Formats: sequence, C-alpha cells, structure tokens
Amino acid sequence: MDLKSINTLRLLSVDMVENAKSGHPGMPLGCSPMMYILFKNFINFNPSDTTWINRDRFILSNGHGCALLYSILHMYKYNISIDDLKKFRQLGSITPGHPEKNITPGIEVTTGPLGQGFANGVGMALAMKHLGSRFNTDNMKIINNKVYVMCGDGCLMEGITNEAASLAGHLRLNNLIVLYDDNMITIDGSTNLGFTENTKDKYIALGWNVLEVMDGNLDLDSINNSLEISQSSEKPVLIMVKTKIGFGSEKEGSEKSHGSPLGEDAIKKLKEKFDFPIDKNFYIPEDVKKSFEINLEEKISGYEKWYDLINQYEKKNPEKFKELNNIINGVIPDLSELLPKFNVSDNCLATRQVSGMCLQSIYQHIPQLIGGSADLSPSNNTVIDTGIQHTDYSRRYIHYGVREHAMCAIANGMSTCHMIPYVSTFLVFINYCLASIRLSALSKHQVLYILTHDSIGLGEDGPTHQPVESLAILRSIPNCLVFRPADGNEVSGCYNYALDNKFGPSCLCLSRQSLPQLVGSKSDLISNGGYVVYEKKNNIEKLLMSGSCKHFDVIIIATGSEVSSCYNVIKSLEKYNIYARLVSMPCVELYDRQSDQYKNLILPKDILKISVEAATTTMWYKYADHCIGIDGFGASGNGKEVMDYFSLSEKKIEYEIRNILKCNNNI
Amino acid sequence: MDLKSINTLRLLSVDMVENAKSGHPGMPLGCSPMMYILFKNFINFNPSDTTWINRDRFILSNGHGCALLYSILHMYKYNISIDDLKKFRQLGSITPGHPEKNITPGIEVTTGPLGQGFANGVGMALAMKHLGSRFNTDNMKIINNKVYVMCGDGCLMEGITNEAASLAGHLRLNNLIVLYDDNMITIDGSTNLGFTENTKDKYIALGWNVLEVMDGNLDLDSINNSLEISQSSEKPVLIMVKTKIGFGSEKEGSEKSHGSPLGEDAIKKLKEKFDFPIDKNFYIPEDVKKSFEINLEEKISGYEKWYDLINQYEKKNPEKFKELNNIINGVIPDLSELLPKFNVSDNCLATRQVSGMCLQSIYQHIPQLIGGSADLSPSNNTVIDTGIQHTDYSRRYIHYGVREHAMCAIANGMSTCHMIPYVSTFLVFINYCLASIRLSALSKHQVLYILTHDSIGLGEDGPTHQPVESLAILRSIPNCLVFRPADGNEVSGCYNYALDNKFGPSCLCLSRQSLPQLVGSKSDLISNGGYVVYEKKNNIEKLLMSGSCKHFDVIIIATGSEVSSCYNVIKSLEKYNIYARLVSMPCVELYDRQSDQYKNLILPKDILKISVEAATTTMWYKYADHCIGIDGFGASGNGKEVMDYFSLSEKKIEYEIRNILKCNNNI
Repeated sequence: MDLKSINTLRLLSVDMVENAKSGHPGMPLGCSPMMYILFKNFINFNPSDTTWINRDRFILSNGHGCALLYSILHMYKYNISIDDLKKFRQLGSITPGHPEKNITPGIEVTTGPLGQGFANGVGMALAMKHLGSRFNTDNMKIINNKVYVMCGDGCLMEGITNEAASLAGHLRLNNLIVLYDDNMITIDGSTNLGFTENTKDKYIALGWNVLEVMDGNLDLDSINNSLEISQSSEKPVLIMVKTKIGFGSEKEGSEKSHGSPLGEDAIKKLKEKFDFPIDKNFYIPEDVKKSFEINLEEKISGYEKWYDLINQYEKKNPEKFKELNNIINGVIPDLSELLPKFNVSDNCLATRQVSGMCLQSIYQHIPQLIGGSADLSPSNNTVIDTGIQHTDYSRRYIHYGVREHAMCAIANGMSTCHMIPYVSTFLVFINYCLASIRLSALSKHQVLYILTHDSIGLGEDGPTHQPVESLAILRSIPNCLVFRPADGNEVSGCYNYALDNKFGPSCLCLSRQSLPQLVGSKSDLISNGGYVVYEKKNNIEKLLMSGSCKHFDVIIIATGSEVSSCYNVIKSLEKYNIYARLVSMPCVELYDRQSDQYKNLILPKDILKISVEAATTTMWYKYADHCIGIDGFGASGNGKEVMDYFSLSEKKIEYEIRNILKCNNNI
Repeated sequence: MDLKSINTLRLLSVDMVENAKSGHPGMPLGCSPMMYILFKNFINFNPSDTTWINRDRFILSNGHGCALLYSILHMYKYNISIDDLKKFRQLGSITPGHPEKNITPGIEVTTGPLGQGFANGVGMALAMKHLGSRFNTDNMKIINNKVYVMCGDGCLMEGITNEAASLAGHLRLNNLIVLYDDNMITIDGSTNLGFTENTKDKYIALGWNVLEVMDGNLDLDSINNSLEISQSSEKPVLIMVKTKIGFGSEKEGSEKSHGSPLGEDAIKKLKEKFDFPIDKNFYIPEDVKKSFEINLEEKISGYEKWYDLINQYEKKNPEKFKELNNIINGVIPDLSELLPKFNVSDNCLATRQVSGMCLQSIYQHIPQLIGGSADLSPSNNTVIDTGIQHTDYSRRYIHYGVREHAMCAIANGMSTCHMIPYVSTFLVFINYCLASIRLSALSKHQVLYILTHDSIGLGEDGPTHQPVESLAILRSIPNCLVFRPADGNEVSGCYNYALDNKFGPSCLCLSRQSLPQLVGSKSDLISNGGYVVYEKKNNIEKLLMSGSCKHFDVIIIATGSEVSSCYNVIKSLEKYNIYARLVSMPCVELYDRQSDQYKNLILPKDILKISVEAATTTMWYKYADHCIGIDGFGASGNGKEVMDYFSLSEKKIEYEIRNILKCNNNI
C-alpha cells in the first residue's frame, strides 16, 4: 500500500504538470517516497485547523516541486480539490507554479527562490523553541513540534542556506529536520559540474547531525529510520536522501526531467510501469484513498489530545495561557502613550538613537516582539537583552552574526509563528538580503527592518557604506512601507504605525547623525504619509503686487534629515520675501494611499514643488517639478563636508532653490 | 627589525585613525604581523607598475582595516605619501575610509561590504588560472602569480563567501591563499555569541587545505612557514591566524578596539610599550625605512626578470604574445558587422534567444570574453563551451552553480584581470546579488549582466519569479546601464554598446517570450537611449478642425516587449483618427545623457506622453504624464493571460490610452 500510495502521488504530480503544459515533474518522481513517509509517520497536523500553533511545519524549499506538495495536501483533505490540481499553474487557481502563502491551505511560506525556505525553517524552529521555553511547564509541553524542510542541491548551494545552517547549528535547533533531495542533478546538468563539496562533513562542521539514506527511491525503511532517529537529536538534522530525479520515467537521472512536462507517451509508459491504468489521469485508487483517510484519523486524534492538554494548561496556568493567546491573536497594546515624545527644546538625537529608545519603551509591552542585528547591534541601537543562546531560548534578542540574508529570511519564518520580528543592519546592506525583503512583502510578513546610517551623511565610511539608491530600491517593492522619519516624534509615529501594519514589512530608515526636534513634527500624522510641518503664506501686499494668487512661492517636500535642513532654508528664504510650505513625507507609500482631496490639500497642483532628499532623485518626479538629491555615489569624509560637497548642506540647498525659483520666474 | 617594522605599521595605522578621529585601529594592531610577512616574503609587485599582469594580487576583504594597507603601501613606495596618510578618511583624499579601486594605487578592488573581497579573489584566481592555461608554454610560465586575500570573521560568516569558497574548492584554485584573521571578535562581541562553526573542518569539506597559526601576534616563523607551505598546495588554502584584536592596546581582545580611535593617552602607552617615541606621530624609524627599501629592490629585480622572460616569450610565441597584449589592452574588434541583423519578416524570437545568438556570433572574436550562468544555462541561453574545470582552465564558460552572489563578485574580480565577464540569471534574482552589482558600478567593472525572464510575461512560474520592481532597482544604481531591448536589432545594438562600455556594468534585461522584429528598430540608435520607432503625424485637415498645432495626439514611450505591443496599439488607434509617436527607450540612462536638443526632439514638451512598461511605474513620471505598468506583484498563469489580467495586453493598453486621451480632452 505504501508504494501504491507513493506512486499515486507521483502520477498525480506528473498529470498536473502535463495538464498545465508547464512545471517540474522530475522532483515529485524522486521525492514522493520521502514526502509520503514524512507526512504519514511524522508530521502532526489537522487539515481543518491549518493555524494550530503546535502543528509540525513543513516547508518545500525546492518550491518548484510543488505539484507533489499540492498532491499530498489533497490526499490529506486540505481544502484543495482534484479540480484545483487540474488548474495547476492557471491564473486565479489556488495551485500556483510555486507555493504561495495566503493562497493555498497548508502552505506555510512562499518558496521558489532557492534557499529561502531553508532559512524560513530555521526561523520557525527558533520561534517555536522560543515559545516553548516561555510557555512550556515541567509537566506540560504544549509546544513541542518539529519543523521539516525539504530542499535540493540548489538550496544547499545558495549562500543564505549556509548562513542559516551555521546559525541553526550554533543555536542547536534540534527541532529542525531537513530532508535533502540528493539527486546529483541541477538545471545545468550533473552536480559534478560545479558542486562537489563534501556536504556531510560540512554540515557536521556547522554543528548538525547528518544522516544518509542510500536509496531514497525504494528503501522506505531507511527513510523512516532516519526520521525516527532525528526525533531525539540534540542538534539540527540533515538527512541526505539519495534519489533519482524523474524516477521511473525515460528521463530518470537527467536534468531534462526537471522543468518541462514529460509528454503523454512517456506518462503512459510510466503508468504502465507503476501498474496504474494508462488512460486515467488524476487517478486515485480507492484503497490508497482509504489508507490516507485512516492515517488522517490518527493525526486528528493526536490533535485532539493536544487540545485536552491545553485545556488542562489553561486551568493550571491561566496567566501564561492568556499571554500565549494574546500572542497567537496578535494583540498589541495602544502604543501611543508608551512611545517617547519630544519637544523642540529637547536634545538633538540621531533617529537611530530614538529608534533604540522606542524599542526600550515598548518591548516589555509587546511579548511577541523579537529582534536582532547582523552584528551591528551597537550601531543599530537594537539590543533589548543579552541574547538567545541554546542555554536560554526565552530571551528576545538574536545575535545574527554577519548574516544579513539569513537574518531576514529567519525573520520571515518567525513572523509565521505569531512573532513580530525586527531585524537590523545598515541601510546600504539591504543589497545583501533583498530577496528576503521581497518575500516579506510578497507573503505579507510583518517584519520591521531597522536600517540605520541612511545617507551620505554617515560620513567617513565612504561610498561602500553610503546608501544613495537604497530608498528608491525599497520604495520600488510593492507592499513594502518605507519610512524615513525626520525627528524623534516622527520615529515614534513610525513605530506606532509599523507595529500596527500586520500585513507586510515596514522599513525604518534612520540617520547616523543627530537631528534637531522639529516644531511641527507630528507622530500621529505619519499615517498620512506626508503632511505640512511648517508654512508661512504670502501676505496680501505681496499677492497684490505680484498679481498672483498663490499662497506659497514654493512647496518643499523633504524626508528624514533633510526636513530640518529645509526648515532652516525656508526660514532663511523668508528674509528675501520668499514664502514656502514644508511637507515632511516620511512614507511615500502611505501618502499614495490618501484621497485625492488630501493630496490636493498638501501638494496643490499649481504651486511649484521641489523635493529634497539625500538620495537618488528619479522617483521624486512623481511628486515634484524639481528634485534635489544625489544621483551618483558618495565619498569618504566628514559627514557635514560630504553633504556640502554633494550640494545637500543648507547653504547649497538654499542656493539651488533660489536658482530654481529664478528660472521659474517665481520671484 | 621585523618586529620593529611591524610595530611601525601598527603605529602608523593607529595614528591615522587618531588623526582622522574615525576608523578602525583594532584590525591593524592584530594583523600587522601577517601583513608584513606576506608583503615582505611572498608578494611580488612593483609599485611603479601597478598594472603588471603577473603581479601577485592582494585583497583586503576586511576593508575596514585599510589604515594598515595604506601604511604598508606607503612603506613600499606606492604613490601614497605621509601626507596622504594624514588625510585618512578626509574628503578628496586618496586614503578613503574603505579601500576604493580607481582612487588609491595598489588597491585591486573596492572592499568593505563583507565577503566581497574574498569572492573577488576567487574571480582573480580563476582569471589568472585561465590566462595561464591559455598563454603559458611548457618552458615559459609567464603567468604564475598568486592571489592573496585577508579577511576576518565577518567575511567568513557571509553567505557569498561560502558560495565562492565552494566553487574555488571545486575548481581547485591553488593560486588562491586566504589569510583569516581569526580573532574571535566581531562588532557584537565574542564570536561565541553566534559563530561557532568548525571553520577548519568546513573548509576541508569545501575542498581547501587549511593551515593554522596559533599565535599570529608574535610567531612570525609560523606565519612564514604556513605561507611557504601554501605555495605548493594543490588546492586553495585557508590559513587560520589566531590574533588579538587591538593587540598591545588597553582594549586588546575587545570589540571596543574595533571601530573607534583608541585615544591619545592609550596611543602614548602603546608607543611606550613598543619602545617608540611617545610624542611622535606618523613616525618611521630610519632603519625600518631602509629595510623596506632593501626588500623592495629584491621585488623589483624579480619584476625585471619577468620582463626578460616575456621578451623571450614574444620572440618564440609572437602570435600568443599579440593576443595576450590585445587582451591586456582591452582591444575589441568592430562588432557591428559580426552581430546578427534582423528584418521585419524574420521569425519572432525571445530577446534571450537573440542574446544567445549574439554571444555565439562574437565570442570567438573577443578572446577576453568569459561567461557563465548561476545554473540556468539553458534558460539564459548563455553556453559557449563545455565549461571550465580544474582539468581544463582554458575554456571560457563557467558553471557557477546556484550561487548568484558569488558569481557576480567573481565576475568583478575577473574584470580586474583584463577579462570581460558576463554572468547570467533570471532578472528577479538580482536581489540575490545586488551588493556585487552595486560594486560593479561603484568600481567601474565592465561586467555584462544577462538577465532573462524580464517581466510577468514569463507566466506560470508566478510572482516569485516575475520581476516587477527589478528594472527600477537596477536603474536606481548610479553608473549602471540598464538595457531592455525590444527586438533582435535592439539586442544586437545593446551588445555592441555594452561591450564598448568599459567603465561600468551593463544589464541586459531580456524576454522569455517571443517578440516580433520591428519595422523601425535600429541597433545603431541604442546609444541614444531612446529613439522614434514609429510615428504618423496628424494630417492638416485634423489640425485645422481641432485648432491644434500638435503633430501627435500622444507620444508612447515603451521598452522591451511593450514596444511591439504599443506598435499594434498605435496602428489600431489610427482607425479612430488618433495619431501617435512611438519611442523605444531601451536605456533610460543613455537617454538622460543626451543633449536637451535631442530630448526635445524625441519627447517635445507640449505633447501628452504615456509610458508603457510591464513593471513598476514610479520612475517613469520623470518622462511621462501617465504611466502604464504594474505596481503590485504578478501571478502564476499563462503569460499572455497574466499580461491581460494586469492590463498589459494590447487590448487593455489601447483601452487605457484612449481613456487617458479622453480625460485629457485630446480627442
């Protein structure tokens, strides 16, 4: 029955690809045995309650093999019908070409870009260890699940995987078990072309236990034994399962079985070989169906036992139960009173410092907040405790090491386990982890990106460390809120908004250098994206004299450190009888979401607009007629001198604005 | 004398940081011994000829320690004066805060972003192996140099380093020797916080030889012996050198010595400890100076011997010598006649296919062209031969494996060795390697990025594989040319331009789907960035009737696959008496460089402009009044259906344009 069930999965997958005329048959043919054994004998779940906190997690890091995953989820009565399988890779279906969170029941995270799922798994394992250590009691292990990842050669080659594996080994995440489809084939051909490292020894060096299954195509006992042994490991486990890609087909063992349909004839031969009716597609033998049903009943009975346990737990630990429930339900207190407030007379502060103050003031009130830095903790101002180690998973700070990419993917994984993760590095280093930031946005993970050293104003470290294009990059990602607050109150406002923004990432871009507290800054207006910080209207005499009816000669739109610079510039312009409005635009995306009425109020059509931001200008032409910024790389030197050199000092900004006004005959 | 020389380097570096009031003293104090021994006894160079092809390469991958590198380059009479050292980290100096290629003599590559230098080193080692295998003869090894990399814990944690190390091990690059400053300290504190992998075993598993120096602070013999042994290794070598960060100072062994000046008093104590005059800054003892001079003479004599060899070589192998010289001098033939040309009647072709044809037609004429793909060779259409292996370094294709980040950094390294590398992956996966693409641009490396599957038009693979923001991301990077050609002739034109663009990267963004050959496409107009592909002017009757004097009702600006769509849309609009100009804008950056006169000719001010590109729209507002594109993520489904769903089919584009025209009362 096991083999028949496995072949059912194989053929369902192959039929899906064939029906779609597109997809990846090779992996399902090779991986069905381990997928089947894993789901049948190990994974605890209930298809009717896909958000059960103590469910085992399964992640298909080699997401292109998703026909197999959809097939087995169908067999286990997840809400995926045969019709859905027939609509594989079709527009609007719940069975897209790569697994997508929020689209398909049972899909924990979006995968496809290689290595991401592996690192997500490390994040989930860490989050569950953390929750377990906070909420389990001596008698009641309410959180004791496992995280299973399946991956291929491609995932193991990616740098992100090495970063994540190294941290998982360090933290001894023994609730993480990775099944590696060791089929020696990648798209270019044999792994001998470019991937000959000793994976076993490498993972042992990274602090993992490594097990081997020499015949993953047929030796089900060996697969089962490896998984059995893994349950009691004291380290994360890599199970290397030797398989043949495209097993059973004419293209068995060849990269040609990877990424395109096998063809009708080849599938008929395959069905014949597996002793299945050759003319039936999407065929599920009755006994196979029955056997899955029986197995599912056992799983549901396990699920019900857990509910007995949690009911007892609630009685004995009502406080803990309540806190856990709040975490699960994403409850967050009103932060507006907790976050720091600032007056004009308060000291100048770098917005990264204010960010640190915000974290300090709220983290005890948000039990699901968990954060870290890619080895820039003192610069990012992110430390909230001494840091998670395998000796104490209950802490809430993570020393990620210099592993930006894994950090972000780990955060994505943690966010699926009811945590609100924040991660941190220098703004320019988003380039190391953009693939994971994109997935935060695509999969709607609530992750806070604390990105300090946000402009050439950081000074001496020079152009390698000075972002110029980074704001434009982040703003180009859909569903990604990019904040660049101007002072203390704006930082508080951004934190308030970001923690409430549950369906996507929020990036806080923060200054290294100190900035004054502004008169007109408003934390509660952050939600509008842009608002008026200061204005002085043209007086009647001037209007009469000029024959104009415009309230302002110019509207300056600025963000972050340039808002206070522009405030001083505007005050200086007033001496020349030039009157301006200053709009702070801490979040372009939120401004775009406002009504036309609001936008016309803030940036009325007929008045000249100039944007000022110490970054590339291109995207600002959507809002402004003239854009002041820096469209090349920065330079090493004192921050103020660098700003001046690139015409972003107050003096130079003023000069430039007056020039623009002259050319536009506004004065 | 060795110790005194080492302490001279230590104190010069510390004085530089103190004088700059900014920088990193910890690393120079720890690494001076290995740096000194390496330069003194191993590195072959001539400071007067910094582009000598057979020089040994030295790369400071932990670039923050550059005070030490500048100091030793000064001692060896590179064109860096004591005054330059005093201007460390000052605006306009040749001693910026991190090493920058093109700024400072002796700096091979820009470093600072961790891991990049390590991977650049792999690229250089590969390029030199390649050149050696092509140009060395049995008797004359004119290319036999080594590549030395220094790096710290941070570099080793980065994923890119693992990718690069894995490939270096696979390719047995025994001309690569890495000195690892194993000081157990990172910015957050002890490496015990998050980096406890067994580096030695890991690198052995990756196919490296690993040597250890147990006391890198004092045991100069051991450093020397390790380097000596490394010379004859059959694999790349990692030398793990145990040091103390901030050696000798009060902050020895602490992360506090890493990133800020030690302070005057602490430096005095240090000078006292090293038996140097405590009140002299930038002090170089005469005997130390002399000893460097004597050592330099030996190096120059080695250099001269090489010239004797190459002179003999020229006589015996005039053809090879000429080819090598052409490579060194960057000679490229006129490509315009070599690249394919297309007529309207020619078959539809995906631009990625045309790209493959371009490579096939030119690679034999450009002996310095060397390329590869991150395991997407058949999809990227990039294969030109069977691929480099350790058994044959003379080939010119590289199977990079699924290692996008290392691939790009390796290409950057190769480009410094007179090669013109091309690399390839899907456009959306630039997110895996953006840190290296940025360095291509910053350091002016000529690298061709062949980025296929350039829009949601790729179809079934879904949003994880469909770029929407990627064009905006690449375009936001300064000095990065981003091409999105519309058909065969434009692809040829882009190749022609990109191969001539020696001072920065060129990104070719290419379609998965087939596109027709256009009537008006011109390969020789690519250099203008944008040009008129088609237009039909309003006739006199219409102008008289409408009272308008505009030649066109609308100008459509499009790129890539949208150019042919818009051509059909415009032809259809003509039925309604609407006349338009179609501008193809294959390279926005090149268009920006044109004269105002040209720009006014192509995009005259008073005519309504609409951009059409299957990507995020924001940056197009600089050129257009209305922007048609996709400002969210894509979806899995048939490519044409997906295009239609997101309103980018011809029918929907036409509908949208007519709507815009109606609202603007242009009809």
